Amino acid sequence: MEKIVTFGEILLRLSTERHLRYSQADTFKATYGGGEFNVAVSLANYGLNAEFVTRIPNNDIGQCAINEMRKLNVANHNVLREGDRIGIYFLETGSSTRASNVVYDRANSAMATLEKGMLNWREILKDATWFHWSGITPALSESAAEACMEAIEVAHEMGITISTDLNYRSKLWKYGKTPKEVMPKMLQYSNVILGDIDTANFMLGVPDVNPDYKNLESLPALYDNLFKLCPNLKYAATTLRYSISASYQRIGGILYDGETVYNADVQDVTPVVDRVGSGDAFMGGLIYGLNEKPLNKQRALNFAVAACCLKHTIAGDYNLVTKEEIEKLIGGDFSGKVSR
Amino acid sequence: MEKIVTFGEILLRLSTERHLRYSQADTFKATYGGGEFNVAVSLANYGLNAEFVTRIPNNDIGQCAINEMRKLNVANHNVLREGDRIGIYFLETGSSTRASNVVYDRANSAMATLEKGMLNWREILKDATWFHWSGITPALSESAAEACMEAIEVAHEMGITISTDLNYRSKLWKYGKTPKEVMPKMLQYSNVILGDIDTANFMLGVPDVNPDYKNLESLPALYDNLFKLCPNLKYAATTLRYSISASYQRIGGILYDGETVYNADVQDVTPVVDRVGSGDAFMGGLIYGLNEKPLNKQRALNFAVAACCLKHTIAGDYNLVTKEEIEKLIGGDFSGKVSR
Amino acid sequence: MEKIVTFGEILLRLSTERHLRYSQADTFKATYGGGEFNVAVSLANYGLNAEFVTRIPNNDIGQCAINEMRKLNVANHNVLREGDRIGIYFLETGSSTRASNVVYDRANSAMATLEKGMLNWREILKDATWFHWSGITPALSESAAEACMEAIEVAHEMGITISTDLNYRSKLWKYGKTPKEVMPKMLQYSNVILGDIDTANFMLGVPDVNPDYKNLESLPALYDNLFKLCPNLKYAATTLRYSISASYQRIGGILYDGETVYNADVQDVTPVVDRVGSGDAFMGGLIYGLNEKPLNKQRALNFAVAACCLKHTIAGDYNLVTKEEIEKLIGGDFSGKVSR
Amino acid sequence: MEKIVTFGEILLRLSTERHLRYSQADTFKATYGGGEFNVAVSLANYGLNAEFVTRIPNNDIGQCAINEMRKLNVANHNVLREGDRIGIYFLETGSSTRASNVVYDRANSAMATLEKGMLNWREILKDATWFHWSGITPALSESAAEACMEAIEVAHEMGITISTDLNYRSKLWKYGKTPKEVMPKMLQYSNVILGDIDTANFMLGVPDVNPDYKNLESLPALYDNLFKLCPNLKYAATTLRYSISASYQRIGGILYDGETVYNADVQDVTPVVDRVGSGDAFMGGLIYGLNEKPLNKQRALNFAVAACCLKHTIAGDYNLVTKEEIEKLIGGDFSGKVSR
Amino acid sequence: MEKIVTFGEILLRLSTERHLRYSQADTFKATYGGGEFNVAVSLANYGLNAEFVTRIPNNDIGQCAINEMRKLNVANHNVLREGDRIGIYFLETGSSTRASNVVYDRANSAMATLEKGMLNWREILKDATWFHWSGITPALSESAAEACMEAIEVAHEMGITISTDLNYRSKLWKYGKTPKEVMPKMLQYSNVILGDIDTANFMLGVPDVNPDYKNLESLPALYDNLFKLCPNLKYAATTLRYSISASYQRIGGILYDGETVYNADVQDVTPVVDRVGSGDAFMGGLIYGLNEKPLNKQRALNFAVAACCLKHTIAGDYNLVTKEEIEKLIGGDFSGKVSR
Amino acid sequence: MEKIVTFGEILLRLSTERHLRYSQADTFKATYGGGEFNVAVSLANYGLNAEFVTRIPNNDIGQCAINEMRKLNVANHNVLREGDRIGIYFLETGSSTRASNVVYDRANSAMATLEKGMLNWREILKDATWFHWSGITPALSESAAEACMEAIEVAHEMGITISTDLNYRSKLWKYGKTPKEVMPKMLQYSNVILGDIDTANFMLGVPDVNPDYKNLESLPALYDNLFKLCPNLKYAATTLRYSISASYQRIGGILYDGETVYNADVQDVTPVVDRVGSGDAFMGGLIYGLNEKPLNKQRALNFAVAACCLKHTIAGDYNLVTKEEIEKLIGGDFSGKVSR
Repeated sequence: MEKIVTFGEILLRLSTERHLRYSQADTFKATYGGGEFNVAVSLANYGLNAEFVTRIPNNDIGQCAINEMRKLNVANHNVLREGDRIGIYFLETGSSTRASNVVYDRANSAMATLEKGMLNWREILKDATWFHWSGITPALSESAAEACMEAIEVAHEMGITISTDLNYRSKLWKYGKTPKEVMPKMLQYSNVILGDIDTANFMLGVPDVNPDYKNLESLPALYDNLFKLCPNLKYAATTLRYSISASYQRIGGILYDGETVYNADVQDVTPVVDRVGSGDAFMGGLIYGLNEKPLNKQRALNFAVAACCLKHTIAGDYNLVTKEEIEKLIGGDFSGKVSR
Repeated sequence: MEKIVTFGEILLRLSTERHLRYSQADTFKATYGGGEFNVAVSLANYGLNAEFVTRIPNNDIGQCAINEMRKLNVANHNVLREGDRIGIYFLETGSSTRASNVVYDRANSAMATLEKGMLNWREILKDATWFHWSGITPALSESAAEACMEAIEVAHEMGITISTDLNYRSKLWKYGKTPKEVMPKMLQYSNVILGDIDTANFMLGVPDVNPDYKNLESLPALYDNLFKLCPNLKYAATTLRYSISASYQRIGGILYDGETVYNADVQDVTPVVDRVGSGDAFMGGLIYGLNEKPLNKQRALNFAVAACCLKHTIAGDYNLVTKEEIEKLIGGDFSGKVSR
Repeated sequence: MEKIVTFGEILLRLSTERHLRYSQADTFKATYGGGEFNVAVSLANYGLNAEFVTRIPNNDIGQCAINEMRKLNVANHNVLREGDRIGIYFLETGSSTRASNVVYDRANSAMATLEKGMLNWREILKDATWFHWSGITPALSESAAEACMEAIEVAHEMGITISTDLNYRSKLWKYGKTPKEVMPKMLQYSNVILGDIDTANFMLGVPDVNPDYKNLESLPALYDNLFKLCPNLKYAATTLRYSISASYQRIGGILYDGETVYNADVQDVTPVVDRVGSGDAFMGGLIYGLNEKPLNKQRALNFAVAACCLKHTIAGDYNLVTKEEIEKLIGGDFSGKVSR
Repeated sequence: MEKIVTFGEILLRLSTERHLRYSQADTFKATYGGGEFNVAVSLANYGLNAEFVTRIPNNDIGQCAINEMRKLNVANHNVLREGDRIGIYFLETGSSTRASNVVYDRANSAMATLEKGMLNWREILKDATWFHWSGITPALSESAAEACMEAIEVAHEMGITISTDLNYRSKLWKYGKTPKEVMPKMLQYSNVILGDIDTANFMLGVPDVNPDYKNLESLPALYDNLFKLCPNLKYAATTLRYSISASYQRIGGILYDGETVYNADVQDVTPVVDRVGSGDAFMGGLIYGLNEKPLNKQRALNFAVAACCLKHTIAGDYNLVTKEEIEKLIGGDFSGKVSR
Repeated sequence: MEKIVTFGEILLRLSTERHLRYSQADTFKATYGGGEFNVAVSLANYGLNAEFVTRIPNNDIGQCAINEMRKLNVANHNVLREGDRIGIYFLETGSSTRASNVVYDRANSAMATLEKGMLNWREILKDATWFHWSGITPALSESAAEACMEAIEVAHEMGITISTDLNYRSKLWKYGKTPKEVMPKMLQYSNVILGDIDTANFMLGVPDVNPDYKNLESLPALYDNLFKLCPNLKYAATTLRYSISASYQRIGGILYDGETVYNADVQDVTPVVDRVGSGDAFMGGLIYGLNEKPLNKQRALNFAVAACCLKHTIAGDYNLVTKEEIEKLIGGDFSGKVSR
Repeated sequence: MEKIVTFGEILLRLSTERHLRYSQADTFKATYGGGEFNVAVSLANYGLNAEFVTRIPNNDIGQCAINEMRKLNVANHNVLREGDRIGIYFLETGSSTRASNVVYDRANSAMATLEKGMLNWREILKDATWFHWSGITPALSESAAEACMEAIEVAHEMGITISTDLNYRSKLWKYGKTPKEVMPKMLQYSNVILGDIDTANFMLGVPDVNPDYKNLESLPALYDNLFKLCPNLKYAATTLRYSISASYQRIGGILYDGETVYNADVQDVTPVVDRVGSGDAFMGGLIYGLNEKPLNKQRALNFAVAACCLKHTIAGDYNLVTKEEIEKLIGGDFSGKVSR
């Protein structure tokens, strides 16, 4: 079976319940999450052999994160148990006209203080066929960026497929470097990139192109810079998200392989239970789809879009759905009929 | 006052809360429900004299079901307290594109092991004017089907009106007989049948007719087989349900008395709080409407549709609404203005 | 800084959670609220110096109300701690076609038994620039109406701006007087009135005019009686509310200054988390807007409408939003994008 | 079967959970209770035919109280559905050195405004063999005291056994009369009285005797005044309660029939889950015991004490235990071994 | 590392919370447990390589049990995913004088319908050093008893150490055979047996000896029958439990190796959070202790007793404690000082 | 009124509920606390004018801490709103033999990164009569220790009484200095010190004296070093705590004024609801007592001990009790009788 390694930070997620504001909450729902871990959970859910690599403190809260990985069937043998603290993010879930609101408390986390050389990537990636990282890790700290670059280089040398979710977070990138100083050299090894075209351009330091994703024919030219500056790139994908309100999202997607633009119909999702992690659900669905044999690019995209839609209906960061549930949506059944 | 007896299984309902998936839940909301019991609750709620007949184990969990009947004002003097276990169903409530998901654990329940002769129907039905059963009971086991047939025959002999909700559940019917081997002889005594035309045809073993419920004029011919094979039939009704998603339902209804097709406008229900039991709410509303004096068939149907709409807004199996709330909807007020 | 005094009753609010009906609930969420207090909370939230004046019993439950005022940064030095009980209201939150349902238990509350002379208004209003009351206080009891009239007269003599929310509640007004016997003399001092034109006419004892708020040009004539009978009136405002269902509201607003009709676009709010207090949120937004310097009447109205929209997304009586969140809506961003 | 009528107020009980103080609670557990109703629940639980008579408002909260009576199998056909409000009591449950703390909000309740003549006692008591009232009802208001006196007189005339729990509550009795002005004429008809000797003396207006309940031989003389002033008295009983702390109670009891003093061993109860209603549990156990045939006075007392002990382990006002559980304690098994 | 296989049923555990009675609960806490599984959890917790073998239905509830095993680090590769239902037990947690109350609903579970030959024990036990079973499995059904016997025989042939907890449950053993017809031939292969001497005698069909565990010198003679009838027996252990009440337990233990009686001091545990699974915690501690090198029998017993004590403080079936926490108790520190 | 300033860190406290272990919890109760803040809450509760000085980030979580201060009536005008994060502590509440378990996550908090000069102490302490700090602040970081020293020096110069709780936390003090390098110069200005004698000796770098607090006559000599090395010291106090288990504490206290040893009787507290903050409750009670006029040293100590006892019965860090409740305990009533 394919073994897919994802690498990043796992965070303790403390969210208010039932759309309460922070100032109203006297309990927090405590779960775990983080972009790259969420991808691993999706893959494990679809039956792939998924492993997550990170650094977590050797205390009781860190142990809870390990227990969660085990429960979710994500391998954790290469997780470093050291460092001072687990990163935390607080989440207040919005509704209708009110946006959700994230407060990050991830500075000085075990992952942010990870350094190059702490992980033995040749060992870790021995049987791996795919390596996934995202733009969050280089946003955490300079040492995390370097540690990520180390992993990318090893993966590339070992001939492993590399995927990247650009995941730009403006509340991060506080350590003195900008994305365009850090990301281009990292992205050059990516074989699959997920993100908005202009987010990619911003990270690569090239001008905005203002894409109109409804005009499919215009897209190849607009993906151009990305393919030029990332010489290993085979697939660029973009989640299309039309936010009508915090509770009503319309979701579609684009996949471009350098030749053909694949397009998936936009689907309504309302009401939204939890939209955090829906981009990771897309990424997870896409990796799964691109690993199917025989490869069907349109189906891979459809799988990613359906996975993304379903994620919005599930509380927490992870996309806890089965392949069968995704197939039903791909097959066109959005009726939500009770199965009994 | 009219005394209406409904007969079937009452189940312990264990549902996840706040749209959690089974794998996320560490508590279950514990209530009770079941198609025929839900009908009795509706009728008690509207002020009729409702009694429920079933078989429940003589243990603490069975006693909780009895307490629930008492609380809901449904008479329980003829409930048998014996058998090994109460049937259980697990429910994971979906949202938007994700369907709700029922897991049945009702094999070997006290009701599934009920046998002909255990209940003294002549005594039970002494003052009754109406007897209601559904297609769930004959789906449980051969002995339950026989016990149900016994009740039907007594009710028919005593001249009591008999109503039936077809309630086809594909996850049941596991004991070796198919609906068409069992249902035709049971349905022959029904005076009122609720169900989709093709569900009826399937149970009666006749071909599908693929009804278009928007084409009212075509319907009498399509209800034909049902009226032919069920010689006591006076009313056939169908709940119209357009599932846009698990959270958005559009509800209407058809009532046919062998001569005229009555039709109720389709109403939007969004977001759905809990759709389980909404068919039973329709059935309960219809029985209530058909018992009003003077009889107004259009109003009976409207009452059933409004009851069904309101049920979607209420957690749990039962339609805990007042006649006044239903009247407001029948009168066209869907505004949901706060009463204060 | 502007010091704004609001005067009325603060109630213990006991609401069922997750749309449960009263008969299903075995816990109540316990918070506090009340029209005029909710206005004070909004103003404190926007950074104004807000004080609430009321009468609360000197027991543990009364103390909880005081704690709440402190937490919400609403001054409480002039609250009388005496009387027998705090008023209570029960709330069952509806959904879709089912309306929310309020049960009042506020008779004989400390506020309803407040009498003229108990509060030293000259002292209380010493540094105040604005005094706000609503039609709820005169609806409670004859003595509360008299106590309110006393405050109004002092405020008027001291040259303080007076605003009034008409807030007609048919379940109150049980003490033997009708609004038109009580309200006209009280409203004559109001400088700002919020309410539907025909509600004002009803309270003033003049005939209905059946306003069509979409026909802006017709409105000045329809506001005529209000301006005639309330000689101090400078602004009349009306919240426009189109209730599609309990879960789907469309909100706009009108502000008329005797010369120009200002109109704010109607906005969709769906799903509604809690609509109680949304009128108070409008009032709070309007007072804030009318206190901004320089005064921009259109912006004041827009602020009120946006505040009202956001309130629907927040559980409880208060509009716990920041100015920044309101600005985002005024600026046209309803997308609910996660801030991270 | 014996039909026992109890008469008093049923209250909405709003309690904080998990020993939270009022100022920490944002939910209240909502149940029902009240001394005389709690007695009825005990009796229904032991299989007697119990009916509760009271007055409750005809609103949704009143209906919840009716539902509760039904659930608990206490007959309610003679409950008046009128009046303005249901009485409320707030409860903060203490622990160890911190006492529980009750806030009453029962003034002007439907029961407090009950008047003589509203209830047809001859009809209500037709088949009754026992009538129970307590010192709470005459403490509510003058009209409630008169209504209670009316019931007592009818019961006495009809030859029905009358029991009374003295239940002195210093936070009540606020309407201008003292117990000794009201109680003596009411107690003269009682056949069974439960209470501390000096509480009885206080209510009867005679001097304290400072009983030492461990000195059994001294007790007949001390019960003397009670028997003299209550000429119908057959049994006087006293719950012995040694409060080590809010969490640790030691419970015993005394029963005196005018000749013999019966004494039950003191039992440890720790930790206490909820001590409210434990006196009512004693009363309920005693009435049950005195109705057993053949009568065994020592057993009746033991039953009352064991019932009282068990009540401390149950949340809420009612003693939800079975006769079998009480028998186990009477038999000396306090081990709390898991039944499996 | 030692690989220890435990074999038995894993149950869905539905318990009321906060000492509520069944009739008061409208939610159940849903966890998992079962004697032999609980032992595996203890062992995994102490760092041993633990595997659990059972049969679970291939539905969503069964999957939750698998997730739980993963979370708890208990290997599950040999779990059969088939059969109709997972066994369930309901638990009402008592307090003080009120006992906890278990309702079993485990008939026809996947484990109860397991048959000899379904599991390939030679494969399963390949690397195992220890095999643990309990008296619950043969109590479920005849086929489960046979399937257990098959496992025992293979384990014995493979030279694996076999431990057994007698675990007599009177509410099971309903299939027509008594323990003494089934257990003797199964116990003959046991190397370690945990249980009361007279429970062993009952299962072996020999007379009671009424042991006085405080008289240590008398014990060797009393363990005599057990050692005679179980020729492979090396260790017999007994948990000493003095139940003062449901909330107060005093725990000690005895270990006898055929020569020496080891005795551990009795420790107070009060208040008890959850005593279910405390016997399994003893068993788990004993197996761990007997696997330590070098072997220290007194320490093995002390470890078992301390583990058992700690289990009483933890909600749920499992003993979620660390070796360090147990060491602290063995070292004599029961102070419960906050670690900070 | 006395104005008392306390200075230290306020932490977000995330605790598991109902004695759950971290690995079992999927929600955390979110409150606030911290030694010096807890003291301020006690003082505000007793009616003193209490102010808390700290540094909190200017984000939504920091705002919640401010709201909490307001709710608790602790002045916050001098709180700095800057820095990166609020300190966090996780708490797992033990029971019986299992200890509570704290995980700190307070490195790099706004308070830990406070620097000398950031706060204008002359302004802050203008009207203050008392300044309180504890050994936690110098344990956080070198800059926090310096900032604390700055405050102490200003307070001393301004002639303000200074109290100190030694509060040794071994999990802190990680920045490279030991208590004895930092504390002696800080403690030299203290007028009141709370702590164990040997903790003081450890911090002052003098040898242990192994005090026997039951031998009152021996104590003056043992307090000797403390009084010698802290020339401003007037009162040394020690909380006596005998931990029988995590659920059972026995609490007493010693107060020594350099001449007389005052001693308060040891009281039982069982079961413990939450012992965190009980030392702060002692400190708060002592400061209150020492501020009473006329001063009664024995009563001051008794007040501190009673406050400490009551704190154990209250969830969370703060001692939410009234003076009246403390008086009741001082008066000897530990019965926990319901107040009604």
